[in-house]
Formats: sequence, C-alpha cells, structure tokens
Amino acid sequence: GFPGIPGMKGEKGEGAYVYRSAFSVGLTSRAPVPNIPIRFTKIFYNEQNHYDETTGKFRCSIPGLYYFAYHLTVYITDVKVSLYKKDKAVLFTYDQFQKNNVDQASGSILLHLSAGEEVWLQVYGEEEKENNGIYADNINDSTFTGFLLYPDLDLH
Amino acid sequence: GFPGIPGMKGEKGEGAYVYRSAFSVGLTSRAPVPNIPIRFTKIFYNEQNHYDETTGKFRCSIPGLYYFAYHLTVYITDVKVSLYKKDKAVLFTYDQFQKNNVDQASGSILLHLSAGEEVWLQVYGEEEKENNGIYADNINDSTFTGFLLYPDLDLH
Amino acid sequence: GFPGIPGMKGEKGEGAYVYRSAFSVGLTSRAPVPNIPIRFTKIFYNEQNHYDETTGKFRCSIPGLYYFAYHLTVYITDVKVSLYKKDKAVLFTYDQFQKNNVDQASGSILLHLSAGEEVWLQVYGEEEKENNGIYADNINDSTFTGFLLYPDLDLH
Ligand SMILES: [Ca+2]
Ligand SMILES: [Ca+2]
Ligand SMILES: [Ca+2]
Repeated sequence: GFPGIPGMKGEKGEGAYVYRSAFSVGLTSRAPVPNIPIRFTKIFYNEQNHYDETTGKFRCSIPGLYYFAYHLTVYITDVKVSLYKKDKAVLFTYDQFQKNNVDQASGSILLHLSAGEEVWLQVYGEEEKENNGIYADNINDSTFTGFLLYPDLDLH
Repeated sequence: GFPGIPGMKGEKGEGAYVYRSAFSVGLTSRAPVPNIPIRFTKIFYNEQNHYDETTGKFRCSIPGLYYFAYHLTVYITDVKVSLYKKDKAVLFTYDQFQKNNVDQASGSILLHLSAGEEVWLQVYGEEEKENNGIYADNINDSTFTGFLLYPDLDLH
Repeated sequence: GFPGIPGMKGEKGEGAYVYRSAFSVGLTSRAPVPNIPIRFTKIFYNEQNHYDETTGKFRCSIPGLYYFAYHLTVYITDVKVSLYKKDKAVLFTYDQFQKNNVDQASGSILLHLSAGEEVWLQVYGEEEKENNGIYADNINDSTFTGFLLYPDLDLH
C-alpha cells in the first residue's frame, strides 16, 4: 500500500521568557536598624518571591546578570548605606542631612549572581545611630528594586 | 504500506524581540502645573509612541512588567512628586530646596501593567505652589523614563 | 499505510541572550579632570569589554536601545556633568554642594545607538574647577552603568 500521511508538525520551541526574577519594594516607616539588612515590607512587585520580606534579602534563583537600584529619602539624620552581596559591601552611598533640607540619595549597579547568592541593603558606619536617616511614611518613599537582565547563557 | 514520513519540525520558538515598549523624555523648561500630569516634551526615545507628549502619560499597549525611573532637578522651591498608575499615586518623592543648594531627586519602580493602564508623574501636596520646584533648561535636565522588562507570559 | 510519527518539537526560540552588552563601573578616587571623559576604573561588571577603562568611554558593538544610569557623590564643590553621545552632550545634571551637606546626584536615559557610537560622562561648565565635585573613596561611590535593553530588530 501507500506510505501513511506525514506526522504532525512538532511543537513550537520555547520562548525567551522563561527566565524571570524581579522585585520592587519600599519602606513603610522610618528606623531601619543599623548593621542588619533593611527590611522593605511595602511590596510593589515580588511575583517570583525571590525577595524575602522577612529578612530583607533578595536570593538569586536564576544565575545571571542583575540590575539593582535604590532611592532613599534622607531625613532627620545622615544616611550611610551599603548594598551587600554575600556579606560583602560592594556599593556605598552617603548623603548628609541638614535641617529643613530633606534630600534624596540613590544608587544602582549591575552584579553577576550565582544561584543562592543574596543581595540586600544595610546601614553602615561606626556611629550607626547617626547614619540611619532613611525615612519613609505614607507620602514619602524609600525603595529597593532588582531584576534579572541577562540569564547565564549556559542555562540554555 | 509503510508509515508516513515524520512530521515537520515544529516552528522555532518566539524571540523576545517582538515585544517592545520604551520611552525616555525630559522637560524643556520649568513650571509643571500642579495636580495634573507633568508634560515632558523633550523626546530622547519614543519609537513606539506609547508615551503621549500631549498628555504626559505613558499608556500600556503590551501587558507585562515595566521599569520606570525619573531624575528631577530641584531648584527655586521644594519638590513633591508622585508616580501615578491609573489615577492612584503609588510612589512618592520629596526633596526640599535651600538657597544656593540645587539638588537632584530620583525614584524608580517596577510595576505590572495591563493593557490600557496609564502611568505618569504629577506634583502633589496641599500647597502645590510650594512643591513644584522641578526645574529644567537647556543645560539642566529633569527626566522620565520607562521600559517593558518582561511581557506577560500568556501573550504566547 | 499508517500516518508517520509526529515531527520533532521545534527549536527553542532565539532568546534575547545572544545579544548582550553591559557595564557597571565606579570611581576609585576624586578629581575627574574637567572637559575630558571621566575614567571610571573600579569595575563591577564589564564582561564584554564594551566599556574601555583607559578612555572612560562605552563603545556600541550591538546596535539597539541602551539604558544608562549614573549616581554621583557631590562633595567639596558643585557637580555639573553631562552624558555625551558622539561628542554631543545629551543629558545634563547639576547639583550644588554646601558645607556639611554631602549630596547624591543621579541621571538615567534610554538612547538608541548605532555600531561604533560612544557614550561617556564628562564634567562641563565655564568654570570647570568649580564643577568637578564628583567624589569617591573606599566607602563612597560614584558610578556609571549601561546595558543593552533591545537589540535592533534587523539583526535577526
Ligand atoms: Ca534637598
Ligand atoms: Ca545639593
Ligand atoms: Ca545632603
């Protein structure tokens, strides 16, 4: 007899959209405790739950290149803050406060992360009490955002 | 008879390149009117025309996760500004001005948008006249930028 | 005969992953010379080497839309800085310094670049000596970051 009809066409390949990791969070009030990770508990976006609001840390699940940005309201006293990666401060932002002159301080960076590596913000300095002027209330934000820009190529 | 030949190979998966939405704009002069969207009319990039320079609003055409960032020159008086999503202020930035001390204030956030949702910047506060210190001229910029980071997966 | 077996699944879609270009760098010390590109030599990320630390310039290898961001510590004197594209200043940031009031100034923009086009930061102004207050030391950063957001579609 004749050969059968051709088989069905294969499934469509996978899109590029599989690899996603992003968070955007803010403070709800003042007074981050110095020398421990700042806990941002106002959640703008945290779909994948890679940011842990109970610890303040973002934990890398997808190895790759990440962009992090923070914007802090400086009020009452100075702000000294570091972005930490794996217990090491890699980025430092300092802004002095003066009376009647609320300021904004910000930082951003690209960092390559391996699975399990954590990133967070923390107040630093010898006189921590004088450096924790990061402020927030219901009409003043201080935020922390991060997202996966390029997943590692060897994931594919 | 013999079985038919195997079916054709499936189509190649969709690239990430189909879904694009981005704008980057600035003010050309001072004096954004309070309590209406700030109209940025200096266009650095607006290829898809999802930002409308006649209204100052970005309108979502591709559902997904967007990154927004703004950087404002603070001069003459204080700046209180909000990023609005659908008539609701979701992010607040406040920077006080003092004589001879021009400042810079900035904010950024990730927001998930559905098709048709709009995002813009607006001066807020009870005493608007004292909070619209956003300044720009030919050698001082105040800018607003946004881009699609991850389109919704169910688009595929 | 029987129908053939179904075809194989299609190839995975081309991710955005082939096209990558990103850098994130900082200053190690104060005193960028005015009117020439600022050389950031602390390297957070420069995998593709599209940023040249000997010149301070990013050179576009992959045509497309790029995001650039900078965050500068303002100390000792004022800061006037421009982001240049091809010898033309396209973005201007000004922040005045006052005694005991270290500030942070930042800017960001989306720019479309063609292959070979260069982008960098530079102090400007008629009285350059008074405008180069960009500061950095081992616990204070001033940074410059850029990344390819969307490669040009005609690359495919
Ligand atoms: Ca201020
Ligand atoms: Ca200032
Ligand atoms: Ca300050």
